[in-house]
Amino acid sequence: MADTDAPVKRRRSGGRAGNSARRGDAAIEQAPWCLPVNRDAPTEPMSQEGVARMHDAAMRILEEIGIEFLNDEAVGILRKAGATVDGQNVRMGRDMVMEYVALAPSQFTITPRNPERRIVLGGNHILFGNVSSPPNYWDMEIGRKVTGTREQCRNLLKLTQYFNCIHFAGGYPVEPVDIHPSIRHLDVLHDKLLLSDKVVHAYSLGPERVEDVLEMVRIAGGLSREEFEASPRMYTNINSTSPLKHDWPMMDGWMRCARAGQALVVTPFTLAGAMAPVTMAGAVAQSLAEALIAVVLAQIVKPGAPCVIGTFTSNVDMKSGAPAFGTPEYMRATQMTGQMARFYGLPLRSSGSCAANVPDGQAMWETEHSLWAAIQSGSHMVYHAAGWLEGGLIASPEKFVMDCEVLSQMIRYMDPAIWDTSDEALALDAIAEVGPHGHFFGCQHTQDRYTTAFYQPFLSDWKNFEAWEAGGAVWTPERAHHLYKQILADFEAPPMDEAIRDELAAFVERRKREGGAPTDF
Amino acid sequence: MADTDAPVKRRRSGGRAGNSARRGDAAIEQAPWCLPVNRDAPTEPMSQEGVARMHDAAMRILEEIGIEFLNDEAVGILRKAGATVDGQNVRMGRDMVMEYVALAPSQFTITPRNPERRIVLGGNHILFGNVSSPPNYWDMEIGRKVTGTREQCRNLLKLTQYFNCIHFAGGYPVEPVDIHPSIRHLDVLHDKLLLSDKVVHAYSLGPERVEDVLEMVRIAGGLSREEFEASPRMYTNINSTSPLKHDWPMMDGWMRCARAGQALVVTPFTLAGAMAPVTMAGAVAQSLAEALIAVVLAQIVKPGAPCVIGTFTSNVDMKSGAPAFGTPEYMRATQMTGQMARFYGLPLRSSGSCAANVPDGQAMWETEHSLWAAIQSGSHMVYHAAGWLEGGLIASPEKFVMDCEVLSQMIRYMDPAIWDTSDEALALDAIAEVGPHGHFFGCQHTQDRYTTAFYQPFLSDWKNFEAWEAGGAVWTPERAHHLYKQILADFEAPPMDEAIRDELAAFVERRKREGGAPTDF
Repeated sequence: MADTDAPVKRRRSGGRAGNSARRGDAAIEQAPWCLPVNRDAPTEPMSQEGVARMHDAAMRILEEIGIEFLNDEAVGILRKAGATVDGQNVRMGRDMVMEYVALAPSQFTITPRNPERRIVLGGNHILFGNVSSPPNYWDMEIGRKVTGTREQCRNLLKLTQYFNCIHFAGGYPVEPVDIHPSIRHLDVLHDKLLLSDKVVHAYSLGPERVEDVLEMVRIAGGLSREEFEASPRMYTNINSTSPLKHDWPMMDGWMRCARAGQALVVTPFTLAGAMAPVTMAGAVAQSLAEALIAVVLAQIVKPGAPCVIGTFTSNVDMKSGAPAFGTPEYMRATQMTGQMARFYGLPLRSSGSCAANVPDGQAMWETEHSLWAAIQSGSHMVYHAAGWLEGGLIASPEKFVMDCEVLSQMIRYMDPAIWDTSDEALALDAIAEVGPHGHFFGCQHTQDRYTTAFYQPFLSDWKNFEAWEAGGAVWTPERAHHLYKQILADFEAPPMDEAIRDELAAFVERRKREGGAPTDF
Repeated sequence: MADTDAPVKRRRSGGRAGNSARRGDAAIEQAPWCLPVNRDAPTEPMSQEGVARMHDAAMRILEEIGIEFLNDEAVGILRKAGATVDGQNVRMGRDMVMEYVALAPSQFTITPRNPERRIVLGGNHILFGNVSSPPNYWDMEIGRKVTGTREQCRNLLKLTQYFNCIHFAGGYPVEPVDIHPSIRHLDVLHDKLLLSDKVVHAYSLGPERVEDVLEMVRIAGGLSREEFEASPRMYTNINSTSPLKHDWPMMDGWMRCARAGQALVVTPFTLAGAMAPVTMAGAVAQSLAEALIAVVLAQIVKPGAPCVIGTFTSNVDMKSGAPAFGTPEYMRATQMTGQMARFYGLPLRSSGSCAANVPDGQAMWETEHSLWAAIQSGSHMVYHAAGWLEGGLIASPEKFVMDCEVLSQMIRYMDPAIWDTSDEALALDAIAEVGPHGHFFGCQHTQDRYTTAFYQPFLSDWKNFEAWEAGGAVWTPERAHHLYKQILADFEAPPMDEAIRDELAAFVERRKREGGAPTDF
């Protein structure tokens, strides 16, 4: 944790960050950035017949019931491509659905301003992102739920950048309500692009916001518009307005990003018993129908557009109507959607989520359930994987650090070195050498390997009770609190070329002068 | 929670328990007792070639290195059956190993004094047991680590009986250090048999203790010795003294229980880097060798003896040497052992475990990791599934209740009703009925199902932050504390025939008069 004697190589940091002479990775020891590969066979609750029945149900929703599009441009495009349109209701045969879905790639890349942070979506890769969009913030020092601010947002962006287990910088990690909505996207994206060099995203909340973010990501990457559009550099995520609706700004952003060659994620929010049937199969079928028709639209607009289908199927507490997360039903719905994503050949997005209000035991078992469901389902992109509380209404830096400990363990869990069965790993010579009367601490086989043999936690306390007590008897959230403070104190922003920084600042200034985005939709 | 107006049917309760006029299940709503079936394909990190290499390594340990038996009777039996004996070192060829292992059943039952609590070990069943053997106790009221007492032990036995997600009453849930070791087994088994009607276990800590427990379980079941020995009514669990040793009392109890027709679990404690190689494959190979040779011995003593192999392979913290649990390496070792248990056709035991000292976030993510590893590995018997802290050195009632919430969710997770894809579950009619402008709360399809559609937690708080705050802002461990107090206050022991209770009491009294068991080994 202390400065080393060696000269510290200062990288030029963003003007808004980098206020420490120490390197950004000094606060903790963590495994280096990598794109984890999930080699485990997915957990598949449905039989092949079940998959066929689920597909049939999703297709029948699109054929017989239809989806409402509150966007005339989208309706026109779908009609022209052969869909049956009745007012805003759009229906289409399964042949049309499957023909267009087949155009979507099963794997693609997104390359942010730092090409070393390029991510691969699809195959056996699994990627984790920060919590996005909570309007509120909780930390142990404040001790209560408060409305999000830009400073809190910036702090969470620093954590997003800092942790190597976080692969992409999703939406706003907390909504900075102290910035006017007309210019909020400009300030947050400006902060994000300076504080992080990971993949970013645009909210599809109106053409101006989307175009501004497209332009800012282009500038940050030092790209011409042609270069920017040649392959994905960012993505948008849209939610359908379940049941059975896609609204105007989401569809506008969807088509806009498709045309600009950027990646597309569609995630229906199908709470079983509320916006979807009370049965998980029904909720998943509805979710698939809502997602697939968006994929069809994207493929018509731009054949081959990189699309991800998301799942956010969970259940409500039928006593209170409150949404629940990380439940048994949530886990199975995620796995079922994973089976269907493979059936359609599309990458899958899921989430780390919980209903708990504070970073306690419940928060962790619910988050564990949602994260294991993500792994078991073969998810490629895991939103909200760090920092989420209260069903997504609260972002917490302590929870962020706790989740990153869990994610780091999960990434190590995917390392095939653990289950190596080479002669060296089977270690018969060491077993013979130690025999029945010794121990393995001292033997050469151990000495050669002990520094890298096992995962080393940065937050877990593995001391015995007495040593833990002597160290202050600190429970996990408080340890996470101290750690996040230390990470922020040590944080150094990734380097950015001076000219690019100036161009970005000028763009933001100009767009603010112009009034930003309208807020009357 | 309150008494109902209906007359409360009092079952006759054990004299030492049943001090409440309310039924024992009044404190919370929980799903009924069942034997959960794990239908998911196990997670199998090793390839077929890896499995073959692991088998070869285990066999070479037994062929070339050998296991030390600190029990002359066991050595003599193994020699006579064809093993190569050199002092206390026993080696044997793989043909001999596989011939005897093949005699062990892949599935069997254990029937406790209440036949409705019969458990099935093997197949796709997965069963959970209470924490066993911590010498210390922690609860929120005491607020520190204290030495275990009989009262604490009795309280944890009540929780063991109370929760339907706990299928067997393993060892002492906390070591009652206030009872002299010579008679401790008599008092605790007496308590256990009165407070619980679930399957119990004998520690293999000397012939007198084992014989006393065999006799007490026979009496409690109202069985003749012949009936008692005809099929398993209880079990023992032994640990090898890794590396590569089986000690005297464990082997004595193992053979004694085998001859008495009872079930046998052997669990090497192979901490990688300490008592086993630092590589997980080496630690698993050594664990298998130590376990399989005990199975061979059991099959020689009693062909067809019901045996379970256990895994307790984890890693140490190489900085401190402290054992760690629920680590990525622990999870994979459990899954690897599961692959090998299926290869040998033997049921598998694993554990719920953690290194955390208090029931906080770390405790839950570590316990989640060990429990998911149990499920993913196809474990049949999960020891320590509720109540364990500090690497097994502390038992905690709050942790017990928290773990039972998790276990109840995992049992629900295994219910195939969740992934039903019948027409009723796919719910196309409901989706059509609600359309794009309604919600599903009110529709008939929801109304018909909402009371049973989703898991209902007894400990998780799904209220939003404001409602949770208005309710006192109670974090999970404190909620668990209140709940365990309430369960104890409401507890009613299961019924026991008066004559059996008297016979049991008389046996305990006589054996205490005789001085109990020697304590000088």
